[in-house]
Amino acid sequence: MTDTQTPKFPIEVCLTPALWHLYDASDSVVILTDIFRATTSMVAAFDNKVKSIIPVAEIAESLAYKEKGYIVAGEREGKKLDFAHFGNSPFNFMEPSLTGKTIVLNTTNGTQALNMVKGKNNLVAIGAFLNLVAVCNWAMAQNRPIIIFCAGWKGRFSLEDSLFAGAAAEYVLRMGKEKFFTNCDSSIACIDLWHTAKADPRAYIEKASHRHRLEKMGLDDVIDYCLQLNISSCIPVLKKEGIVNIAIRS
Amino acid sequence: MTDTQTPKFPIEVCLTPALWHLYDASDSVVILTDIFRATTSMVAAFDNKVKSIIPVAEIAESLAYKEKGYIVAGEREGKKLDFAHFGNSPFNFMEPSLTGKTIVLNTTNGTQALNMVKGKNNLVAIGAFLNLVAVCNWAMAQNRPIIIFCAGWKGRFSLEDSLFAGAAAEYVLRMGKEKFFTNCDSSIACIDLWHTAKADPRAYIEKASHRHRLEKMGLDDVIDYCLQLNISSCIPVLKKEGIVNIAIRS
Repeated sequence: MTDTQTPKFPIEVCLTPALWHLYDASDSVVILTDIFRATTSMVAAFDNKVKSIIPVAEIAESLAYKEKGYIVAGEREGKKLDFAHFGNSPFNFMEPSLTGKTIVLNTTNGTQALNMVKGKNNLVAIGAFLNLVAVCNWAMAQNRPIIIFCAGWKGRFSLEDSLFAGAAAEYVLRMGKEKFFTNCDSSIACIDLWHTAKADPRAYIEKASHRHRLEKMGLDDVIDYCLQLNISSCIPVLKKEGIVNIAIRS
Repeated sequence: MTDTQTPKFPIEVCLTPALWHLYDASDSVVILTDIFRATTSMVAAFDNKVKSIIPVAEIAESLAYKEKGYIVAGEREGKKLDFAHFGNSPFNFMEPSLTGKTIVLNTTNGTQALNMVKGKNNLVAIGAFLNLVAVCNWAMAQNRPIIIFCAGWKGRFSLEDSLFAGAAAEYVLRMGKEKFFTNCDSSIACIDLWHTAKADPRAYIEKASHRHRLEKMGLDDVIDYCLQLNISSCIPVLKKEGIVNIAIRS
């Protein structure tokens, strides 16, 4: 194909769950991100070859899964749910005993957001810096509009999720320029933030409020891990049975 | 005062009206901005010495004011309301015959946003690039938390309003560093966008979706005017009787 084509599919960024009602995600690919820490932890889990992750929004639902014998992980505002086997640090998900297992996960922002985005006709994938190129390449191959959905913090804009959105949008618009375009101000802003940050994301993220929230709780040991680019080829996608890594299926 | 004080008042940016419910604006100063074009037009009107502007959200209410003999201005999605005397271009508000008059204004985003932000204990001011330093200096002198509220476009993030927010937040945190601090990711992002744009805001704004929306409608003649920095000393503030320029009262 040497012909120049007019780009056909829009790429948009939804900056927080509180803006989700303004987007039409039918027939789209939604890439959900929650860098600190839910989606990074999911990618870490699939790198550790877990079988699937069942995302849950209600605490009672997590408890019911536990009573049925499931491995249950989760937190609220960074703090492990008292009945859960472990919290939401990506390091928790690297435990060798989890290989082949199904994990039920419930987090403050990430799994709540997942519940919002799943629709009849859309495809939902999990994005983190760890698997940015893998998830974007897959999303581009679906030949649909793409929406990058930032989980944020309690409805608010978050710097680290927006940086991911910018990095992903920049990649899609550069590598898929024959197919994708944007006329979405949020995408443009996120791309420019990524340009500002990309030389040293670790230094940039020092400014982020959630980075300080994690530090206060002694949970900031994950930051360097979460900011690593493209160390994973996982493509976690939401299916009926939960989130599975379709990279190992295809 | 030579003592170093711990900054006391937060400054935050609310990126769109759809996020407003996440902010506590009681006892705050809210600086509302809608660069293309409502708040720029208001500043232009006060530079032209209008007496007051009554912001109205409902079309029926504008019509009722017209029947009472008021001068009525307004638009929906850029198009003049058919019964209005004029639309929402700042150039409309420079007409010499408007000096000393009260204008009833109704716009797609700006006056709707004004209706959202007014509360019992807060102060609401109108900000645009034209009066950035004037409105920020006044806001800083109130010794209250500051929230910069971007009117956006139909609930969505807008690049031009966010640039204003960044320029204003940067100014407040620089000039009022003894009193003001931020731990709000939106403020940090907007400041960085402003740093990216400030050498040539006109070139930067070429990327904005609303700039192209205005161009399609033949309304982009206002862009250069709207992006001028600090040509006005107006401080339009919402009072019971409407918006008035308190710079001429003090």
